[in-house]
Amino acid sequence: MSRIAYVNGRYVPLRDASVHVEDRGYQFADGVYEVCEIRDGRPIDMPRHLARLKRSLSELRITEPMKPAALEMVMHEVIRRNRINYGIVYLQVTRGVARRDHAFPTTPVKPAVVVTARHLNLARNEDNAAKGIAVVTTPENRWARVDIKTVGLLPNVLARQGARERGAYEAWFVDAKGCITEGSSSNAWIVTRDGRVVTRPADHGILSGITRAVLFNVLEALQLKLEERAFTLDDVGQATEAFVTSASQIVMPVVKVDDRAVGDGKVGPVAKRLREEFHRFAQVS
Amino acid sequence: MSRIAYVNGRYVPLRDASVHVEDRGYQFADGVYEVCEIRDGRPIDMPRHLARLKRSLSELRITEPMKPAALEMVMHEVIRRNRINYGIVYLQVTRGVARRDHAFPTTPVKPAVVVTARHLNLARNEDNAAKGIAVVTTPENRWARVDIKTVGLLPNVLARQGARERGAYEAWFVDAKGCITEGSSSNAWIVTRDGRVVTRPADHGILSGITRAVLFNVLEALQLKLEERAFTLDDVGQATEAFVTSASQIVMPVVKVDDRAVGDGKVGPVAKRLREEFHRFAQVS
Repeated sequence: MSRIAYVNGRYVPLRDASVHVEDRGYQFADGVYEVCEIRDGRPIDMPRHLARLKRSLSELRITEPMKPAALEMVMHEVIRRNRINYGIVYLQVTRGVARRDHAFPTTPVKPAVVVTARHLNLARNEDNAAKGIAVVTTPENRWARVDIKTVGLLPNVLARQGARERGAYEAWFVDAKGCITEGSSSNAWIVTRDGRVVTRPADHGILSGITRAVLFNVLEALQLKLEERAFTLDDVGQATEAFVTSASQIVMPVVKVDDRAVGDGKVGPVAKRLREEFHRFAQVS
Repeated sequence: MSRIAYVNGRYVPLRDASVHVEDRGYQFADGVYEVCEIRDGRPIDMPRHLARLKRSLSELRITEPMKPAALEMVMHEVIRRNRINYGIVYLQVTRGVARRDHAFPTTPVKPAVVVTARHLNLARNEDNAAKGIAVVTTPENRWARVDIKTVGLLPNVLARQGARERGAYEAWFVDAKGCITEGSSSNAWIVTRDGRVVTRPADHGILSGITRAVLFNVLEALQLKLEERAFTLDDVGQATEAFVTSASQIVMPVVKVDDRAVGDGKVGPVAKRLREEFHRFAQVS
C-alpha cells in the first residue's frame, strides 16, 4: 500500500511529498514537530500534543498554521488514509518558505505543515519491553533550549547512532554536573530502593514529555511517590529500576546503562506496572 | 528572470525546487552547507569552501555526494544560469531521504544536494561597510559542535532576529566566561590600541571561517600582527576597532556593540584597509 502524507493543504502519495528547498525547516531547522502514538487506529493524548505544539510555535514566534481542531482533523485523516492501527502520526510545522536570510521573513509567510503516519511493530515493541533495553551515556552537547521541540535534532541523531554502535537502544545525555538530562528521544527515569520514582524537573534542559506528564497521573493513581529531581549515574547505580518514556515507547524498561546492570539486570515490577496501566490514563481521540 | 536551482541531479526553476519531506535535512537538520561569494560572475575561494564541506561531511559521516570537481561544475552552472555577477552561491548537502528514525539509515542512501544562487546588492553592502554596522550581544546557547557547518541554525536565527529588533545588524554570542565566540553568521574581530588584530582560535566553539582564514594571509602580507585568543566585552570596550568577517560581507566594520561605540565610533583604518585588500588574496575560480 502506498503511504499518504499531508503537505500544505493536500493529501499526496508519500513518494511525491515534498517541500520547497527554501522552506526554513530545511535551511535553518526553523520548525517544530510532534509525534503521537496511534492505538486501535486512534491518536493518543492528541490535545496535550497540540498544546505543546502551540507552546513550541509560540516560543519561536511561528504563526499557528491552522486551528487545533483543523490540525486534529488532518491527523485523523492521515491515520485513516494510511489505515494505521498501531503506529505513530508525525506532525511538523516550520516557519514557511522565504528567501534565505537568518532573520524572520519581513513579510509574513504561511507556515508549512507536514503530517505523515506509519505502522509500528507492536510485537517487537512488547518484546523489547519484556526484555528491557540497554542505554549508553554521552556528554550533553545540545543547545540551551531543548524544552522547545524543534527539528534541530542533529545532536540527538549522533547520540542515537552512537548508542546503536555500542549495542544499545537509547543514549542518555549527561550534563556538566554529571546529571542525566534525558534520552535522545525519550525522558529518563529511575526507581530508588525505597520505591520513589525519580525524573528530572522539566526546566530548559529537557523536553517536557507528554508521556512523562501522563505518567505523573498514573503514579498518583497508583499511590507511587514521584520525585522530580536531577539524578546522576551514581544514582542509577543505586537504583532498583530505570526506564524511559516517549510517545512511541510509552514506558520502556532499561536494564543496562553503560554495560552496568540496573538493579538485578531484569525488568522491574514498577516499570512493568506503569507500562501496563498507562493507557488507562491516556486520552484517546 | 526566474531563478534556477540544482536539486539532486537536475536544474529546475527555483519555484519548483523541492526536496522530499523525509529528507533528513528537513526532519533532523542532518546536513551541512556552504556559502561562497560571487564576484564578476565567479565564485571566491571555492576550493577552501569545498575542503570545509568535505570536513563537515566527514564529521557527520555523510558520504560525499560527488567529487569536488563535479560540485564545482554544478556551482559554476548555477551561477551561469542565474547570470549572477555579484552575489552568493549556496550549497547544501544532507544525509538523504529515509524513513524517519534518529539513527543513520541502515541501508545506504544517496545524500541530497541543493545548489542555489542569488544576487546581492553591492552598493548596499559597500554603503554598510562605509558606515559600519551595529552589533548586539546575546548569551551563547548553541550546541557544542558549531565548528561543523550544519543547517541546525535555529539559535543563529533567533539571535539574528533579536539583533534586528534591537536595531542591529549582527548578534555576537557571548560564552559563560564572558568571551565573544562569534556572530550568528560571521566571525568576530577586534583591533587593540597597539594594533594587534584579535580573533578567537578556531576550536569547537566557532566555525572556522574561510574569510577568516584568507584574512590571516592578508594580515601577514600587510605585516599586521595577528593574535588568536578569546576576547571579552571589556576587550571590545578597550579596542580601537571591531569588525566581522563572512563570505557575503567580507570585512564588515563594527562601530557599535550593545549601544556602546567601538573606538571613536567610526569605521577604522585597519578594517577599511583589510576590506580593500581582501580580494587580492582570495582565490577566484
